[in-house]
Amino acid sequence: MTIDVDAMTAYRRDQSALTAAGYPAALVRARNTDDVVATLKYAHAHKIPLVTRGAGTGLAGAANAIDGAIVLSMERMNRILDVDAGRRIARVQPGVINADLAAAAAEHGLWYVPDPGSREISTIGGNIATNAGGACCAKYGVTADHVAALTAVLADGRIIHTGAVTRKNAAGLNLTQLIVGSEGALAVIVEATLRLRRSSADPATVVASFPSVGQAISAVLGIRDATEPCVAELMDQTTIAAVNAMTQMGLDATAGALLLVQYDDRTSEAQASACAGLCSQHGATEVYHTSDPIEGEQFMQARRVAFTALEKQGSALLDDLAVPVPALPEMLSAIESIAAKHDLTIGTFGHAADGNLHPTIIFNAGDADETGRARDAFDAMVNACLDLGGSITGEHGVGVLKHRYLQRMIGPIECELSAKVKAAFDPHGILNPGRSL
Amino acid sequence: MTIDVDAMTAYRRDQSALTAAGYPAALVRARNTDDVVATLKYAHAHKIPLVTRGAGTGLAGAANAIDGAIVLSMERMNRILDVDAGRRIARVQPGVINADLAAAAAEHGLWYVPDPGSREISTIGGNIATNAGGACCAKYGVTADHVAALTAVLADGRIIHTGAVTRKNAAGLNLTQLIVGSEGALAVIVEATLRLRRSSADPATVVASFPSVGQAISAVLGIRDATEPCVAELMDQTTIAAVNAMTQMGLDATAGALLLVQYDDRTSEAQASACAGLCSQHGATEVYHTSDPIEGEQFMQARRVAFTALEKQGSALLDDLAVPVPALPEMLSAIESIAAKHDLTIGTFGHAADGNLHPTIIFNAGDADETGRARDAFDAMVNACLDLGGSITGEHGVGVLKHRYLQRMIGPIECELSAKVKAAFDPHGILNPGRSL
Repeated sequence: MTIDVDAMTAYRRDQSALTAAGYPAALVRARNTDDVVATLKYAHAHKIPLVTRGAGTGLAGAANAIDGAIVLSMERMNRILDVDAGRRIARVQPGVINADLAAAAAEHGLWYVPDPGSREISTIGGNIATNAGGACCAKYGVTADHVAALTAVLADGRIIHTGAVTRKNAAGLNLTQLIVGSEGALAVIVEATLRLRRSSADPATVVASFPSVGQAISAVLGIRDATEPCVAELMDQTTIAAVNAMTQMGLDATAGALLLVQYDDRTSEAQASACAGLCSQHGATEVYHTSDPIEGEQFMQARRVAFTALEKQGSALLDDLAVPVPALPEMLSAIESIAAKHDLTIGTFGHAADGNLHPTIIFNAGDADETGRARDAFDAMVNACLDLGGSITGEHGVGVLKHRYLQRMIGPIECELSAKVKAAFDPHGILNPGRSL
Repeated sequence: MTIDVDAMTAYRRDQSALTAAGYPAALVRARNTDDVVATLKYAHAHKIPLVTRGAGTGLAGAANAIDGAIVLSMERMNRILDVDAGRRIARVQPGVINADLAAAAAEHGLWYVPDPGSREISTIGGNIATNAGGACCAKYGVTADHVAALTAVLADGRIIHTGAVTRKNAAGLNLTQLIVGSEGALAVIVEATLRLRRSSADPATVVASFPSVGQAISAVLGIRDATEPCVAELMDQTTIAAVNAMTQMGLDATAGALLLVQYDDRTSEAQASACAGLCSQHGATEVYHTSDPIEGEQFMQARRVAFTALEKQGSALLDDLAVPVPALPEMLSAIESIAAKHDLTIGTFGHAADGNLHPTIIFNAGDADETGRARDAFDAMVNACLDLGGSITGEHGVGVLKHRYLQRMIGPIECELSAKVKAAFDPHGILNPGRSL
């Protein structure tokens, strides 16, 4: 056995900013379920903490190493075991990349729906562990809604099978949905059975510029009442400028907000026309509307690079807040006030149709005062979200980044109950301790 | 305090056949959360089993009394607390009748989707506790998919709040989905926050007669590939005859199977036409297609009374099996063989688009031999379903009726794990012991 510190360094962190990461004692890159079982039995017997990770694209530090822990990487368990077009399910190992599964399903005329921004690089196991979202959740739900069954390894190395391949299943406790989103704190997923849908129609796309984010949101509320978009993405002025600076896409730089709406059924054209009209009624200064899917995809690409573009402006502390859709104007006002109060730039983009925003604080990580203000602004945004009846995380998870807010959101009795549920899976508390719950 | 044995008798059973029911020691009809808390504290302190029930329309005996238990009826906690059109959620007490909530939502142009056959008489609390299904699950999901948040009382009387009112929420363990479908074994639900959708379009309806159930199912597979029905219901010849005998509706009595398909979006007309064509291609002898919603509803009514109609033929033992959709022909053949082998009449109807069948054994409960054969046939059907990779219950739950099959379906390690999870909620095991898990 050799100790390769450099190899381990690459497995110390996910992509979150300002999250603590420890130094692991060992790295295991599992090739099969037996490797996972052996690793867990060892960790369980010796009470060694264990952090499971996929591609490390998480944004809340849930996959960050803990001092002295075993890091268990699932990236090599990356086989698509079966795509069953009749049953409309796929069985995959956890290290399969989201986009690879989507491509395999498409070969059968089927669609793996969940589309986190990281889809080209993130793994299905990580998507499930964090209950990842994406752009089309308002219409199609989050990762959880597409998981039918799991095979997972308990802390003591025993293998469990949860759920069923059928569309409906009312047998026993729903252990599947308990494991989804549990950030590796309950069990290690070694196989997932995922639901596939019929491919949707080519999307029609509407892009509209508004003088203010408030007007864009009032348009979203009107659009939601009259049509059923699969995508309704928002970018504020700071984000538009950052995307333009990085991509030279020439988005409307004078706009206070840009709205990007897509429809993907057989009435997309009619719905897109109605949407365009509603945008104008709500004060849009420019409205463009296309049924060309390639052009639509270019606009979506502009939205997808939003975070990368903001990261080029400095260090970026990304938030992930979910509020009821009608509370979006208040949440956006709160973000604006917080930016002003803490003298910081905050670029906001997100999924307007389901109330999930990603305000991103741009700061200079070399400046201790500014870093402190960034942390304070982050706190203030999370608290403002809770005051509006929101959730501290819509799709990135709790991890290390949000752990300190969890008790305010879910309460002490619920935290105690969750800890007892965890103990049922993991009596020695070795699985990702201190995260998720 | 008086003991009114007759009053208690009405609370001893749900609507299941051939399930054991004990004699309760007491009945509590809770009027508010305080009543629930006081009852649970007492039961917990004295280690008295407690069975929670709604309207008692369950079909698996989960609400049947246990000897010496407290029966806790939630039927008087029946207020709709709030319908919030902007947030698209409703907050209700557990005793609210499903159809009353649907009507209240409709007043706001919104739709509470889950539509179990019992919707006119069953409660939301019971729907959640059993994870009830309905006719439109293939497109819109089961009750679980529409529950955003719960307030529930733990066995020791402490109150917990789970979930969030937002569309996306990745914070902490998913205690909400753990409680959904747990048949009162984890906690007593005292308030539910449910998701509402935009009302759908008036449905277009296709009714097709086939010489055999096999042909009807092959049509369903074709329909599912080409269109997106919200409803695809199947009735076999025995069921058609029973419905005709009860209602004089004049359904095609010569048909081996009847298929009833509905579409509820803006392209319903076109999809219904395509569906009608596919039915003909797959051997339908009669195809009728209407865009009149009242006429469509009359056909749906024929399907909804299927179980009642079969009950008029004798004692009826209803099953609830879910198989992958492509396995439906094999499941239907197995049912036919089992009926022949045990010399019984079995009428089968169900939700073809999601693979959930309700084969119903008609027998003479006064004849011990025939009752024994009915039990044996029931066993054989459940086992055939498991052999096809199915679930022992799609939407009725485990209760008393299916408890003996649970370990074959979910395995001993999973059963042990579920028991530990239950103990986290209910350390003395007072909540509906011996059911659900």
